[in-house]
Amino acid sequence: MTTTRLEAFSDGVFAIAITLLVIELRPPEVERGSELAGALWDLWPGYFAYLVSFVTIGVMWLNHHRIFTQVRAVDGPLLLLNLHLLLWVALIPFPTAVVADYLAEGGDGARTALVLYSVVFLLAGVAFGLLFGWITRDARLLERPPPAEVVRSARLRFMFGQAVYLTAIVVSLIAPVVALALHGAMAVYYAFDQATVPVGA
Amino acid sequence: MTTTRLEAFSDGVFAIAITLLVIELRPPEVERGSELAGALWDLWPGYFAYLVSFVTIGVMWLNHHRIFTQVRAVDGPLLLLNLHLLLWVALIPFPTAVVADYLAEGGDGARTALVLYSVVFLLAGVAFGLLFGWITRDARLLERPPPAEVVRSARLRFMFGQAVYLTAIVVSLIAPVVALALHGAMAVYYAFDQATVPVGA
Amino acid sequence: MTTTRLEAFSDGVFAIAITLLVIELRPPEVERGSELAGALWDLWPGYFAYLVSFVTIGVMWLNHHRIFTQVRAVDGPLLLLNLHLLLWVALIPFPTAVVADYLAEGGDGARTALVLYSVVFLLAGVAFGLLFGWITRDARLLERPPPAEVVRSARLRFMFGQAVYLTAIVVSLIAPVVALALHGAMAVYYAFDQATVPVGA
Amino acid sequence: MTTTRLEAFSDGVFAIAITLLVIELRPPEVERGSELAGALWDLWPGYFAYLVSFVTIGVMWLNHHRIFTQVRAVDGPLLLLNLHLLLWVALIPFPTAVVADYLAEGGDGARTALVLYSVVFLLAGVAFGLLFGWITRDARLLERPPPAEVVRSARLRFMFGQAVYLTAIVVSLIAPVVALALHGAMAVYYAFDQATVPVGA
Repeated sequence: MTTTRLEAFSDGVFAIAITLLVIELRPPEVERGSELAGALWDLWPGYFAYLVSFVTIGVMWLNHHRIFTQVRAVDGPLLLLNLHLLLWVALIPFPTAVVADYLAEGGDGARTALVLYSVVFLLAGVAFGLLFGWITRDARLLERPPPAEVVRSARLRFMFGQAVYLTAIVVSLIAPVVALALHGAMAVYYAFDQATVPVGA
Repeated sequence: MTTTRLEAFSDGVFAIAITLLVIELRPPEVERGSELAGALWDLWPGYFAYLVSFVTIGVMWLNHHRIFTQVRAVDGPLLLLNLHLLLWVALIPFPTAVVADYLAEGGDGARTALVLYSVVFLLAGVAFGLLFGWITRDARLLERPPPAEVVRSARLRFMFGQAVYLTAIVVSLIAPVVALALHGAMAVYYAFDQATVPVGA
Repeated sequence: MTTTRLEAFSDGVFAIAITLLVIELRPPEVERGSELAGALWDLWPGYFAYLVSFVTIGVMWLNHHRIFTQVRAVDGPLLLLNLHLLLWVALIPFPTAVVADYLAEGGDGARTALVLYSVVFLLAGVAFGLLFGWITRDARLLERPPPAEVVRSARLRFMFGQAVYLTAIVVSLIAPVVALALHGAMAVYYAFDQATVPVGA
Repeated sequence: MTTTRLEAFSDGVFAIAITLLVIELRPPEVERGSELAGALWDLWPGYFAYLVSFVTIGVMWLNHHRIFTQVRAVDGPLLLLNLHLLLWVALIPFPTAVVADYLAEGGDGARTALVLYSVVFLLAGVAFGLLFGWITRDARLLERPPPAEVVRSARLRFMFGQAVYLTAIVVSLIAPVVALALHGAMAVYYAFDQATVPVGA
């Protein structure tokens, strides 16, 4: 089994999850048209959560894509670990919707929403780390085994990401909006990081 | 007609069905933010059903994928039997949503929900069995005909699956949560089974 | 421009439209669990409409697939006519939902729902006919021009389909359930027709 | 990294966004079946917005497709600019739904809805312009660098599009229906423009 159909299926799930985010944005219901602008403005937590989740899923796709260009063979654990990753990616629209609904009201609701959001992102990150760990465990699945220090540095970056997501859980309890901004900053950081690594690396 | 576009279309339906599962998970509506954590917790049947359905569709995709690596030609009945399978796969988000809504309340509602869920899984399994039966009926559609005992053992495993799904229908009437757990156990069993069969087999 | 990416995009729209049909099936809301079985039963127009729309979109995909195996070049009108077809295919979940909501109550509601459903199917059929007509207009876009009588017979079958859809509009005004059954019969007829035409034809 | 998987992912997002438009069309809820026809008729802003958004996304896909046939290499900024474009494309179902809900009532509601719609289209257009600008910045990413006047004329057409979208924002404040029609006219204009440019151009 080559990686072609695995990548196609994964691409499908990434593309659908990223596009489904929009259905959490519902037109507001207002009684008089003059209130629509304000009501649309009040949806800002939804736009913010859409943006952060969109960029995060997009970056995970980029990363997934980059890794699989190096994979030449697929074994059973890889299939399961990939399915496990997709399980968390496909779930992201749910915590995104919870954040959209509860961030603005502040208090316990916003805190709980951001903890949920951060936990799902943490688990998606762990799933990605496990997948990456399996692929780079030895040279069997790879086109050409990368130098040990490249693997080590990539693993360090995964751990850095996990540490930030753990921090985000704590921050969620204090300042939920900051926690969401932290997720956004991480996504942008990874996006530029991904985009500047030489593609063959 | 080669299998390429048939596989692409099937991959699309599998990927969409598996990702649409998440839209059955709706943010709970609570009056005070302090109740959100509890309300999220109360959605556990939704998470449980999401998990079981996700793994089941994922495993069916793996299995579909594995089988079609051996298929070299497509005939009319194969097209129809594949469409018939996709009809049941694409339907899975519906019984999943019914289980998410009615499992927690127990009683007749939970029993009915799990019977529906088990029946749809049984029919998806039967559809898969028919497709597999047609493909392995003789050597016409296959890359290289597998040894008779491999086909026989695969058919036995399909029948074992059907027997478990039939059992799940009965268990649904007694202990709906156990029936859902049984579906989950089946999915995990098949996942590891799929993942450990040598890929060329 | 070859047909590869056009087919991939079209496959995506067909696969998504066919899978989105399920989101029109919503779990019923009942007060006591003992009423769930009856409420699920009452959704039969939804199941019926899901089945007919699923088979119809599936058959249109098969037909689209078959035609494009013969197309070797893409020109501007082909792109537009294909987009026009997809516009109607992607719309099908809407009349399907209207039928699911209004068939059971009978009377004017059911009649109106089935007229809408039949009109959308008629227009999708017309869109398919225009696409097919353009492709077979001359030999420029085709791998090898089919014999004139094959084209003529295919066009006759398109017209036959249009005539049935027109009939369905009339029948909708008298017996809406029969009109839906007529659509189902057409889909099954085309499915077997598609499946028995030699694949290279 | 070649463009294959980037195009596949983008195709997926385009295909899903275009097909998700339909879920904004909900069956109307009427008390007596005899009112269904009128209620369906009252959904005309939904149909109109569906049509305009569908054609616009379709044309953006055509354009995206055409441009990428000339791209031979992918670099980091291209990945990010493409993701940025997809972010706006995937958002389109949201303003489409707002227009569907508020166009008919006229007044401030309709004006606000159309301003939102026009702004999202403008930003999607800007995103497309940035992507196109990056690709044609020099010859590094291109199969064969197009003549300077072709690039200049294409850029002029992008700017023309932006100017029309800016105009549409102003028109939205005066006559929202006309603004939506203007978007529709733009989409049709681009559709025929796309369809008549020689494919290799």
